[in-house]
Formats: sequence, C-alpha cells, structure tokens
Amino acid sequence: MRILGIDPGLRSTGFGVIDKTGNTLSYVASGCIKSDAENSLPQRIKTLLDGIAEIIATYGPQQAAVEIVFVNVNPQSTLLLGQARGAAISALVTADLPVAEYTALQVKQAVVGHGKAAKEQVQQMVARLLKLPGVPSADAADALACAIAHAHGGQGLGALATLGRRVRGGRIV
Amino acid sequence: MRILGIDPGLRSTGFGVIDKTGNTLSYVASGCIKSDAENSLPQRIKTLLDGIAEIIATYGPQQAAVEIVFVNVNPQSTLLLGQARGAAISALVTADLPVAEYTALQVKQAVVGHGKAAKEQVQQMVARLLKLPGVPSADAADALACAIAHAHGGQGLGALATLGRRVRGGRIV
Repeated sequence: MRILGIDPGLRSTGFGVIDKTGNTLSYVASGCIKSDAENSLPQRIKTLLDGIAEIIATYGPQQAAVEIVFVNVNPQSTLLLGQARGAAISALVTADLPVAEYTALQVKQAVVGHGKAAKEQVQQMVARLLKLPGVPSADAADALACAIAHAHGGQGLGALATLGRRVRGGRIV
Repeated sequence: MRILGIDPGLRSTGFGVIDKTGNTLSYVASGCIKSDAENSLPQRIKTLLDGIAEIIATYGPQQAAVEIVFVNVNPQSTLLLGQARGAAISALVTADLPVAEYTALQVKQAVVGHGKAAKEQVQQMVARLLKLPGVPSADAADALACAIAHAHGGQGLGALATLGRRVRGGRIV
C-alpha cells in the first residue's frame, strides 16, 4: 500500500510518500510545495493544487493522510491555514483518494511514542523508521510522520488505538 | 459576461449567477450547496467541490467572485470556514475561472451604497437590482451581491474605486 502524507500550509505544504509492505515501511519520496506570498490567494491555491496533483500523478498513492492543523493565536493566520488545508484536501478528494485525518498528537504518538515530542525528535525518528541517510526537513518529516501514523493505524496493530486514536474521514466514494 | 458569485461556508455555501450585458445586470440562477455535518470533513469538501463543479458545468460562468470571510470569535469555526473557502476557491481555479475576492464591506458598498447595511437590506437591494419576484435567501443573496460587486468593478465605473475598492486575485493562467 502506498500512502501520501500531507502537512498543509499556505507558504509551504510538506508531502511524504511511503510504501507499506506487510509490516515494513519504506521511503518513496518527500519534499514540500512552496507558494509565492507575492501572489494572490487563488494563485497560491492553484500552485498547491497543481503540486499535489503532480505528486499523485508521479507516485500513484492509494491512500492519503492529512495532519489536522492547530488553530493559531492569530485568527488571520488560522484562516489562511484553513484555506490551505481545504485546498490540500480538495486536491486529494478530486483524485479520488481516501483521506484520513490525524492530529499532531496522534502523529507524534505513532512515530515517537508520546505526544509531547519535539520537532527534532520527530525528524530523527522518521529518518530511523524509514532508514533515511539523513534527516528530512521539518515540513517533509511531518508529512512522512503523518503517513507513518496512517500506516500504523491501517495495520490494525492497535498501537494507535491504545493511545487514543481517533481517525476522522474515510473513503470517498 | 457571466459571473458566478460565491459566499463560502462549510454548512452552506451560497452561489449566485448573473449576466452583465453592457450596464444591465440580469439574474441567471442562485441557491446554496449544503453539506451534512454528520460526514467527515473530506466528504463535506467533496460535496462542496462537486456542487460548484456542477454549477460551473450547468451555467458556464466566465468569471468568479468570492466573498472574503471574516475571522470568527471561535478559532475552530474560523478554521472550518477557512477550509470551506479554500475548497471553494479550489473548485473555481480547477475550472480555470479567474477569481476575484471582495470583502463583505466592499460587497455592501457596491449593492446598498454603504458598508454597514443589514443582511435584510442586502437581500432587498439584490432583489431590486436583479428584478427578482421575491427576496432570495441570505446565503444566495450574499453570493449574488458578490457577483454584482464584481460586475460593478468590472464596468470600470469607478463606483467601487471611490469607495476603497481593493480587488485581490486575478486571472489564473
């Protein structure tokens, strides 16, 4: 099973693609889609949509997992983040991918083992779990971590269930 | 020129289609796309995307205008509203429509003549300007008002420019 993880943001949306074969996870690709702050919001959303569509066309994931973003102290930033996340989910459902959603807490629990892990710990554990030669960038690591959380949940090992897993979303018919 | 106005919301997204022929505006269609709160966010976004795609396929607008939403007192509501707006803009740019954005203030100024108009005044002025037999629902009226604001701006009459018009967005190539 090939999983696309997405960590949405208007300035930078991280993506990570992994394969799950039995209980083994392997790295396929990761990176981030950046949009130019000089452009209008519709243009930036178009950049994000095109980027995700290209990733889907290139790597052919069967499932998608998107991080549930936090509300920001700045309401205007929350609104922008929400719009980026809405666009990212739009790109995924347009490609008929089933979309699961995970909170940052769930992602950290799945990857590091507890919900209070620092960003660097997530990056290091992602590198270790996927046997990467180096540590991925923060955005890419978060997206890969989200894909890993989905892979763990999908295995039905109960690893996440015992830690309060709550998956929203599901197959889009 | 046929204009599609959108008033985005996760529970209900209003739409309004008008034609501008010279200086004359005429009503084509309006209504709202509702999503089921029981469904997951990706499913609700899919409903919104499919609804807007269907409206575009049915009425063939050449331009789109989307209301700039306000941040809510509740950050979680702001996030949801942002996601709905991001999805709505995604549907429009996916259909290659140029998207302009207007604040509620700009829309009210364009339709009623001042920015502090009540919802009912907007509904009544929309009905009068488009010679409707009755008053449209609030969501549909806001979407039609947004399309009217865009039609006024596009005419270059300066009606909006003098009132502090600031259009963000533009043609998506």
